[in-house]
Amino acid sequence: MYKLTYLDSGVCSSEGFFADGVSAGLKANSALDMAFIYSDAPCDVASVFTTNKMAAAPIKHFKAKGDFQTNFVLINSKNANAMTGVAGVKDIDEIMQNFSDKLNPVMSSTGVIGVRLPKEKIIAGTKLFDITQKNPSNAARAIMTTDSFSKECAYKVELDDGSSFSIGAMAKGAGMINPAMATMLCFITTDADVPAHEMQKILDEATKTTFNAASVDGDTSTNDTVMVLANKKSGAYDKEAFADALYKIMLFLAREMVRDGEGATKLVTYNVTGAKDDKEAEIAAKALSDSLLVKTALYGEDPNWGRIASTIGASGVASDEMSLKISFDNVCVYDKGEVYFDAEMEKKAAIVMTHKKFTINCDLGIAKGSFKAYGCDLGYEYVKINADYRT
Amino acid sequence: MYKLTYLDSGVCSSEGFFADGVSAGLKANSALDMAFIYSDAPCDVASVFTTNKMAAAPIKHFKAKGDFQTNFVLINSKNANAMTGVAGVKDIDEIMQNFSDKLNPVMSSTGVIGVRLPKEKIIAGTKLFDITQKNPSNAARAIMTTDSFSKECAYKVELDDGSSFSIGAMAKGAGMINPAMATMLCFITTDADVPAHEMQKILDEATKTTFNAASVDGDTSTNDTVMVLANKKSGAYDKEAFADALYKIMLFLAREMVRDGEGATKLVTYNVTGAKDDKEAEIAAKALSDSLLVKTALYGEDPNWGRIASTIGASGVASDEMSLKISFDNVCVYDKGEVYFDAEMEKKAAIVMTHKKFTINCDLGIAKGSFKAYGCDLGYEYVKINADYRT
Repeated sequence: MYKLTYLDSGVCSSEGFFADGVSAGLKANSALDMAFIYSDAPCDVASVFTTNKMAAAPIKHFKAKGDFQTNFVLINSKNANAMTGVAGVKDIDEIMQNFSDKLNPVMSSTGVIGVRLPKEKIIAGTKLFDITQKNPSNAARAIMTTDSFSKECAYKVELDDGSSFSIGAMAKGAGMINPAMATMLCFITTDADVPAHEMQKILDEATKTTFNAASVDGDTSTNDTVMVLANKKSGAYDKEAFADALYKIMLFLAREMVRDGEGATKLVTYNVTGAKDDKEAEIAAKALSDSLLVKTALYGEDPNWGRIASTIGASGVASDEMSLKISFDNVCVYDKGEVYFDAEMEKKAAIVMTHKKFTINCDLGIAKGSFKAYGCDLGYEYVKINADYRT
Repeated sequence: MYKLTYLDSGVCSSEGFFADGVSAGLKANSALDMAFIYSDAPCDVASVFTTNKMAAAPIKHFKAKGDFQTNFVLINSKNANAMTGVAGVKDIDEIMQNFSDKLNPVMSSTGVIGVRLPKEKIIAGTKLFDITQKNPSNAARAIMTTDSFSKECAYKVELDDGSSFSIGAMAKGAGMINPAMATMLCFITTDADVPAHEMQKILDEATKTTFNAASVDGDTSTNDTVMVLANKKSGAYDKEAFADALYKIMLFLAREMVRDGEGATKLVTYNVTGAKDDKEAEIAAKALSDSLLVKTALYGEDPNWGRIASTIGASGVASDEMSLKISFDNVCVYDKGEVYFDAEMEKKAAIVMTHKKFTINCDLGIAKGSFKAYGCDLGYEYVKINADYRT
């Protein structure tokens, strides 16, 4: 047994971690655009990166290191340092010369693709860093791009033997979020005494049902990064408690990212059950969260279950109109050939759709496979944000 | 050698074919909503249907027949007769009792999913049919749903020996168009003396690079149908000429459907070359035509080539930023690590994007695989049409 307590100190929740955000003039109006995370003790690192073949320079830079420890992460928004070739990686080396007192400093970037980093601005910005600061919410704001709010989450984990550790995190999301990883950055810090190899496995496992189950627009970015830094300073650890707390933090942040999807007004859980197996449930759930026709119906608050059935059928998983059941929360609209869709039921279903959060349950009625995916609606704001992003 | 001449008589271009559209009150304001195609001689049939597992009742009804000839097709818009179970198929049988004088009459439907056909209205509508009429453009208008214009195409094919045949077609598209077939109906008539088995093969082959290369929103409907009716009345046939004319007609209609995609303002050809093989080129080209971030950038007329590179990378095909080349028509914006994207080049690329039709060329620089996909932009109108579709 163990006890989780929510903390509001983000990536500075664990002993020995410091963070802050500064303005280096990358964003307009002196908005925060550069962040650091510093640990006063070396950290083991677990990480998950984009599957995109055009992975950005910071990811190539990180991967070139092999296994290593670090105590410093530098993050900039507004420029992704992607599609910048060998020069983009060299730019990072040059910037890192300013951190020769740090242990294997790591960089992470998010923003526009195909433009070289403004090195001078960034180096000037790093001069503003004060590594004795604990301003996690500044760091969380500095990594935002089209996010409309910053995203943080942290828990203190108390074990039965009286020992305790903490896990804290910040993330950015908004656009380009996709089941196969997302344009998202997430940095997680912990003082748990977690063995490095175990940490990577726990992170991989949690990613499948959290960040990889979240979709805003089905695109997968060049820069997706989830990184866990563990400085072991608490000396405390319990595998089950650590995995549970990490999962809860990642699920919360994944759902926050979808809720803050570009132009999104609703957070919808697609709960697919009764599939041939879990993999087929995942395929169907992600097809729903990615379907433009479903997303626009959500935006219009139209309980158009026909589009849901059609999307499941189009996904290619084992399914049949005579075994399928669809409910909006607990309002059943279609059950194995019976359409529960008179005016009264339509009204009830339409009311569910006005909620900020609800669940679309699809029981395929084939076998026992299940998966939950998280998606949002798509409205005019998404088009506005993405038609005008660079300008 | 052979000669193709464009005809403006749609599905009535071939000898012995008759067609018309009537208003049965399914659509508002007495708009045309039911169509027929009749042939005064029995027709062999070739067909391609949706891969959606929730295939609509008319498709189940058709497939239950096995191999057969027909001389009559009845089409209604406004109601898809999908997710209507056994009752939906029985409804078709009942309607077909009014066509007992016809040979294996076939039905096809498009519209809202999950609502039973208004049988009485449809049967009353069929009483208005006059099978001696040749009004192909009425038929083409009657099958429209959210289409903003009707789609027809026909060629006369003159062979070297002085014989000739014709092929004519009508189609509807607009929403839910997708590489793996589309909510599209397409009916093609011909008096060519084409052997039935050869006709199916030629249709399958042409479908891959025409309708299956066209995308509006990446969704695949329950009702997609392409049907070719051949009454052989000309006695003339040449395989190469027939295949070429059929391909040209299908490509024209596929591109017209994309051009008329819901809310679309641009028709974009994604010409992927240099891929590992043709299959990988197809994957990359379709990923581009389906990408929301690319589609919204098109709408914003923003030559944001970074999103194109990112989408190719995310598609999983063999690709590398150091071998990739991207051009908008003939304006190169990225070439193997070199960004040709100064203010002047950006202006030139932005001008290309203001055109109604243009090509985005992506040379992956890996091997010789190539594929062309057809897509459109996504703007406010798409959201408006789809958020409000049923209401």
